[in-house]
This record gives sequence, C-alpha cells and structure tokens, in this order.
Amino acid sequence: MTNTQGTIPAHLPVSYADIEAAARRLSDRANRTPVMTSSTVDKLTQARVFFKCENFQRTGSFKFRGAYNAIAQLSPEQKEAGVLAYSSGNHAQAIALAGHLFDIKTAIAMPDDAPAVKKTATREYGAEIIFYNRKETTREKLLEKLVAKRDRTVIHPFDNQQVIAGQGTAAKELIEEVGELDYLLVCCGGGGLLSGSAIAANTLAPKCRVIGAEPERADDATRSFYSKTLQTVHNPDTIADGARTPSLGQFTFPLVLHYVRDMVTVSEEAIVNAMFFLWERLKIVVEPTGALATAALLQGAVRAPDARIGVIVTGGNVDIRGFWE
Amino acid sequence: MTNTQGTIPAHLPVSYADIEAAARRLSDRANRTPVMTSSTVDKLTQARVFFKCENFQRTGSFKFRGAYNAIAQLSPEQKEAGVLAYSSGNHAQAIALAGHLFDIKTAIAMPDDAPAVKKTATREYGAEIIFYNRKETTREKLLEKLVAKRDRTVIHPFDNQQVIAGQGTAAKELIEEVGELDYLLVCCGGGGLLSGSAIAANTLAPKCRVIGAEPERADDATRSFYSKTLQTVHNPDTIADGARTPSLGQFTFPLVLHYVRDMVTVSEEAIVNAMFFLWERLKIVVEPTGALATAALLQGAVRAPDARIGVIVTGGNVDIRGFWE
Repeated sequence: MTNTQGTIPAHLPVSYADIEAAARRLSDRANRTPVMTSSTVDKLTQARVFFKCENFQRTGSFKFRGAYNAIAQLSPEQKEAGVLAYSSGNHAQAIALAGHLFDIKTAIAMPDDAPAVKKTATREYGAEIIFYNRKETTREKLLEKLVAKRDRTVIHPFDNQQVIAGQGTAAKELIEEVGELDYLLVCCGGGGLLSGSAIAANTLAPKCRVIGAEPERADDATRSFYSKTLQTVHNPDTIADGARTPSLGQFTFPLVLHYVRDMVTVSEEAIVNAMFFLWERLKIVVEPTGALATAALLQGAVRAPDARIGVIVTGGNVDIRGFWE
Repeated sequence: MTNTQGTIPAHLPVSYADIEAAARRLSDRANRTPVMTSSTVDKLTQARVFFKCENFQRTGSFKFRGAYNAIAQLSPEQKEAGVLAYSSGNHAQAIALAGHLFDIKTAIAMPDDAPAVKKTATREYGAEIIFYNRKETTREKLLEKLVAKRDRTVIHPFDNQQVIAGQGTAAKELIEEVGELDYLLVCCGGGGLLSGSAIAANTLAPKCRVIGAEPERADDATRSFYSKTLQTVHNPDTIADGARTPSLGQFTFPLVLHYVRDMVTVSEEAIVNAMFFLWERLKIVVEPTGALATAALLQGAVRAPDARIGVIVTGGNVDIRGFWE
C-alpha cells in the first residue's frame, strides 16, 4: 500500500502555489462553475451574496477538483496499480470519473445506505463499489482489510494535500470572478474544502473572513476549532451526509486553525430550509450538505450591511424521487 | 377597456423584426439565461442537446420576456390606468414584476389552486390578486366582469403580438449562442412561446425543424395542428399547469400552422420523469410544464443521430415543499 497523503507533518502542509498548480491541471477538465446571485437573498441579508455553484461541477460536486488533482500526480506505477477510496458518495463519484479520465482502475468502499443517485453514478463512471454497513464497521477498518489485499493507492477524501489543493480552486475561481469578498462561507465535513478555500482567500482576498459551517449534530470541527484540540463525533445522525466525517484530519486541522476565522453550526431544520430555499428561489438542486453554508447565511452568521459575501454551494447529488415518494 | 392584442386579423401577425425589437427592449432587463449541456443526455439521445434554461429567467420563467415587451409598448395613458391579466401563475408573476419596473398598477385574476409559490411571488412583486375557482368560472368570464369595472389594459398571456414577440427572444438567444440547430423542441400551452420560437428559428436557423410538445391530457394544439381547425380542451387534468389553456389563439394558431413542423404529446408519467431527470442530472429545478419539451426528447420525438437539438426549459416555479410533505 502506498498513500498519496505522504507523511509530512508540517504545520501548514498546503500553500497557495499548490492551488495554482491544481488550477492549471484542472483548467480543461473541471467545469468553471457559474456564480449566481439573487435579489431576494440580497434583500434578506442586506448584503451582496455570490453563490459559487459547485452542484454544476462534473459528478455534481466540488469533489471532482480534489480527486482529479490527486490522481493526476500519481506515478506511472501507482496509476498502473489503481486507486482505492472510501466515501459516502461524492468523493466516490469524483474518484470514479477522474480514474476513468486517466484510464486507471478504481475501487470505492461506500456505506450501503448512501443515496442511490450517488451509488448509481459511481458505478456508471466505471468504479468497483465495495459496500459496508456503517453501523457495523468503520470505513477506516474496512479499508485496512482491503489495502492488505491490494497494492492500490488510497486517496483520502479530505486529508490529502493534493485533494485540499484541488478543492481550493473553487474559491480561487469565485474571487477571481467577483473580486474582493468580506466573508466566505464554506461547509465543513473533514475540512478539505474549507482548508483549500481559506488558503485561496488568504492570498486572493486577504481581508476576507472565512467561516466554516457544520451541522449541530456533527459539530466536531467547531469544537476542535474552539478548543484547539482535535474533537471527534461518532456516526452523527444528520441529513447532511457529506458532513458525517468523524473529525478534521492531520492536514486539515492545522489549516483550519490557521486560516479560518470562525465556525458556526446549523440545525437540521435550518439545513432543510436552506436547501428548499435554494431550490425554490435560485432554481438549483442542492443536496443537504451543499446547503450548509447557505443555512449559516440565512440564520444570520454574518450581520454586516452591504458586505460582499461568498457562499460555496458544494453539491447537488440528492435522491429527489425519495422525497417525492 | 383597451386591449394590447389590437385587432389585426392578418395571417401572420408577428414577424422576426418584432422579435428583434423586443430583444432590444429586453436587453438590460431580462436575464440572458444560460444554455446547459449534459453528456448523459447526449449519450442517451446520440445527439448534441442544448437546454435553454428559462427557469433562470427573472420571475422564474420565460413569461417575463413577453410581459415586459407588452407593457413597454403601452401608451402613457394606458400605463397610468394600469394592467389586468389572468394567469395560473407565471404570466402573473411576469406582469407583476414588469408592472413594478414601470411603476404601474397591476391586477391578476388567478385560480385559487395555483401553486403557492406562484401566488406568493406575484404578491411580493406588488400585484393585486383576484382569486377565482376554475371549476366554477372561466378566467375569461371573470375578466369580462372585472374590465367592466376598471379601465385597465388586458394583457393576454399568449394571444398578444407583443407577448409572442417577447417570447421569441429566448430562441433567438439560444441560436445566436450555439449556432445552427436541426431541431428545436418547445412546450405548448396557448402557443405564445412556440410561435415566437418558431418565428425566430425560421430566420436564424432556416433548416431547423420546430416541434411543439404538450400533455396527452391537454392535446388541443396537437389536434388543431393536424386537423387545421381550432380544437379546444376543457379544464384538463394535467400536472403541467401552464399547459391547461383551452386552445391556441387567433394569433398563435396561424403562426403554429405556418412555422411549426410537428406536434407531439407526452404522458403525465413522462412529464414527471423528465422533470426529475432534469433535477437529478442537470441539477436544475424545473416545473412540470417546463419539462414538457424534455419529456418529448426523452421519449424519442427526435431520432436523428448527431443532430443538434435545442430544448427550451421554460420555468422553475414549483411547490417543492408540497412534494416533500
């Protein structure tokens, strides 16, 4: 087993230069996703809000950026052996498509209760899926067993320097398109997107305060942020399936501590309301995790008249028929 | 009572020059809506499909184009007296916002079972709403009563030359952006958008075959098209609320006969499936009527390998919470 995470325990393991390099790799492979605005939102918040819509990214979420950037940097031998990953869904699809684009083999460990739309898409992109029951085993334990049998590179869904650098390209595009921001709201699961966004903002909009948003029911990163000690949460019961990660990682924790200005939590009801708000008002399909930053915005995480606020809408992979039926 | 429909009984009451003039009026007022593509759709249809996403238009549907173009051409006296309209919703919101932008009074007769999201938005734009029960009275009868009391201009939701010209600007934008098309699929209620689109395509992409799509349960336009005699339908039970119109109009019928190549119908199930398909795959919120043309596409209305197919996605105003609860 090799691991692209490497072993660098440095205090700040990812730099803006890494994000720039990732952006070059992604330039003709990732979608340059649209930035949307809404006069209703601006009126409600008395601010100027810019939604970076990563639900329109390839595979339906920002995860493609990090997965592609990581796979692009594998050695020929690593590419030949293939890739292993675990994911509730979006990282799975991202690895599956990125692997397909590089013509390498991918296998994904996925909880058996992942949204059907994510399972189907992962399979359609050509990955092998290995299901597990998330109440009986952890992804990490399963992975240990799997890698013992196969000589594949594991690409961690967030605690991987190439993944973090790739995720940072979304905020880079946003700020390059709309200019200086006063605030940037970003959801937080394992902190890959949050770290990458904060690094990008630190260089491109140094006055911008980056705020992380996570579910109240999975508030490990918020507790870690305030206590400055890594906190965990076990199998949290939140609708935001992308934020069920047990904790920040060895790379994302120091990055969040260093670059992020504040963390806020939102209730399950606020997540669902924000999701419907985006559907009804912006006419875009957003999954619960993808609506976390918007939920923070709508509950007043930023009260600053005329502020310029960026919000990353992270994904749109949701079982819609499940809601209907 | 005055009526912007005027009294011209000419065979072809709207020209491409009218659409060009409408486009100039709308240039800094309407959104230039995005054109989306999907590799999944292209694979499914073995064609190259371009979705013109009018769900991102102001007020959430293409109707803003026609309403604004009509109100823009009222005389100062007509503007002073205000505007009356009837609509299941999207024309209502469009008239309400266009009226607001010109600072004129608007009143809308609306069925009491119109989607709540449409009622709320219409009220928020500042229009007065007059509810009626569509099983007890027709909009036309109600309107007769109302106009007897008020000296306001009635702006018909589709059978109005300025409205038709305004609606034609969506197809104009689409073809100008993506180039020549082989087919253009457009939904049909009263035929305003279909007429306008077909006039635009006739000038900008003369080889393009324009095909109208309507619900099987409200197939009056299809029957009119084939019989060349105006057919009607009474209060049809279709989920596509924008296509519950009783018939084509005095202006739209001859335009449809002259410019449209074919009409197809789609089942209720096909409409719902197409709507969910657009939500899940394109990550855009589309209302049932807005998915009619996509439903026609997905059921194989066009079987032409490598064809370049335009599809107008007309609106995204749908009670999402109603689906959830």
